[in-house]
Amino acid sequence: MEVVKRANARDAARTPGDPRVIRLEVGQPATGAPATAVRAAAAALSAAAPMGYTEAFGLVSLRRRIGRHYRDTYAVTVEAERIAVSTGASGGFLLAFLAAFDPGDRVAMASPYYPPYANILHALGMRPVVLPCGPETRFQPTVAMLEALAETPDGLPDGLIVASPCNPAGTTLSAGELAALARFCHDNGVRLISDEIYHGLNWSEKPATAAAFSPSAVVINSFSKYWSMTGWRIGWLVLPDDLRAPVSRLKQNLFISAPHVSQVAAEAAFEAGDEIARTLAIYRRNRAHLLDALSAAGLDDVAPAQGAFYLYARTPDDSTRFCDRLLNDLSIAATPGIDFDPERGHRYVRFSFCGPEADMIEAAHRLRAGTMRGA
Amino acid sequence: MEVVKRANARDAARTPGDPRVIRLEVGQPATGAPATAVRAAAAALSAAAPMGYTEAFGLVSLRRRIGRHYRDTYAVTVEAERIAVSTGASGGFLLAFLAAFDPGDRVAMASPYYPPYANILHALGMRPVVLPCGPETRFQPTVAMLEALAETPDGLPDGLIVASPCNPAGTTLSAGELAALARFCHDNGVRLISDEIYHGLNWSEKPATAAAFSPSAVVINSFSKYWSMTGWRIGWLVLPDDLRAPVSRLKQNLFISAPHVSQVAAEAAFEAGDEIARTLAIYRRNRAHLLDALSAAGLDDVAPAQGAFYLYARTPDDSTRFCDRLLNDLSIAATPGIDFDPERGHRYVRFSFCGPEADMIEAAHRLRAGTMRGA
Repeated sequence: MEVVKRANARDAARTPGDPRVIRLEVGQPATGAPATAVRAAAAALSAAAPMGYTEAFGLVSLRRRIGRHYRDTYAVTVEAERIAVSTGASGGFLLAFLAAFDPGDRVAMASPYYPPYANILHALGMRPVVLPCGPETRFQPTVAMLEALAETPDGLPDGLIVASPCNPAGTTLSAGELAALARFCHDNGVRLISDEIYHGLNWSEKPATAAAFSPSAVVINSFSKYWSMTGWRIGWLVLPDDLRAPVSRLKQNLFISAPHVSQVAAEAAFEAGDEIARTLAIYRRNRAHLLDALSAAGLDDVAPAQGAFYLYARTPDDSTRFCDRLLNDLSIAATPGIDFDPERGHRYVRFSFCGPEADMIEAAHRLRAGTMRGA
Repeated sequence: MEVVKRANARDAARTPGDPRVIRLEVGQPATGAPATAVRAAAAALSAAAPMGYTEAFGLVSLRRRIGRHYRDTYAVTVEAERIAVSTGASGGFLLAFLAAFDPGDRVAMASPYYPPYANILHALGMRPVVLPCGPETRFQPTVAMLEALAETPDGLPDGLIVASPCNPAGTTLSAGELAALARFCHDNGVRLISDEIYHGLNWSEKPATAAAFSPSAVVINSFSKYWSMTGWRIGWLVLPDDLRAPVSRLKQNLFISAPHVSQVAAEAAFEAGDEIARTLAIYRRNRAHLLDALSAAGLDDVAPAQGAFYLYARTPDDSTRFCDRLLNDLSIAATPGIDFDPERGHRYVRFSFCGPEADMIEAAHRLRAGTMRGA
């Protein structure tokens, strides 16, 4: 958030002739909801029936459509009864953590990680256990790391959060790696929470879902990223059987239901067709523009950009100072790695490429022409 | 929820000629969002800008408009900086409890009460302290009750939840009573949480807000009831200065922001004008229809119906059996008091009058013609 503030301040303070700030610090798509989603929402608004509460788990038609998505995308059967529509992935994490863990429970995650994982756990009196991950494992956790934890005095954690593709590193777990983690967790009583919100934004291989590998895993997904529906606050959970009733009770009390109009829009988002393909094509080009320019600028130690819309690059010196120079010299905003990894993030920077293609081209131009190489 | 299920089942099982079930068990207005709100939402949908995240506390224009509402309605100054737009009142309670209380903290509330108060507290490891309230105090808590708690081994609670008008009793605290509770809480380090979601649905005197009486109270409000916007999941908090930063951090991590389109609609709801007045007129007539019929049916021990859209009446015998007969004999669904008060609720029933006027007329007719008196 500090980065966003500084970028805003610099943009506000610039005089005529100064270049505008290119915003590569935020993870919010430049595109909006698919036209099919917006049309469905508009139709629902103009219908006679008021937008009342829905069932706690969401509209049955949406849950069935999500179930079909699992059949079509992963060839996995997920019954509508196991799907809970949530108020964004955020609402999904809250429900999953409350239902699956008790205060004091330890929940492991790779570092670097999406900060709300740890912040939500802390707010609920649970304890994040950070697994330091570097380029050796593509910033992803491994079964070996869990086995090593088992040998420590505290032993295995109560839960493990994985994200593939992940934020900030943009790397993925292969189907085999995810299956191995899921099996280890299931066999050892570690509740697996699989953050799959960047699914579909996969640049090398097709995504695999934890729902295919584990009857005890919780899957969290969202319409915010692949479908560009951030402000609609709509996502879903795939629940194991034992958490259906607890999540239902919690959801009724904590949320009543997800926003009705967003549920209607989300269902129609599945029919967006070519529109998503066009957005993905932009992301692919954006990714290429930035990767080329980073390399030309000497930032060539980049995590394998396998998914999501982030590039996680090693910086030549302290990443906060590096980001300051990037903003001051090139008017490019990026996020220093310390936001995601207090230990080793001071040597990494995250660039987001979900903005408009023209911005990526301009950023690439500035990076090539700029003085970052010798910085 | 059991009541809703049974009412649904009865309606599904009825044969031609059977009367349909009149639904007096739910607290969801039959009306939808004001036309101004729906129009604003539709306009926002057709605008070019995507519906992205908003600031964590919500759109500045909406927060300013809510601030004006406090000036216009209560002649109280509430700065936009103290207003946090929430994902319904539900999201507001979660944030308020997490920010104001620690696990193990004791939070008092009148019984009968809205069940999620206690359920959310339990989910967060906090402890509800129930203050048994009866017709002597219009089912509302008093300073004397808190003073009595202070004399117990556990002492004063860490917090107090008040609701005026309240669910299920439909009673209110006078401005003087609310002020006295607020002063006592502030002076004694008890955090007051004032649930004001039924404000505006006041049938005897104008509502008073805790924001007028206490610099430490948290006010929770919602667009669901007065503005009939349940499924939009939009509400707000008025925060004391010391909770602004904690709620902001929690909100960013747990919600990111409230649904964007709902925020736009909510702002326009304030301009609904006559439409709300017409809805209030229906509620007033509905209330009169039901009160008359309950009296004619011998159910004349009813809590003063000062606000909200509920009548809380004493039953001649066990309220669960009473509700069963009501459903079986008259095809009227109502909620037994045990849902709100496990101790004394077995002799109370809640009727909701937010449904269509035709339903209230029909329910009144059945109650008068029926056999409830001697039941």
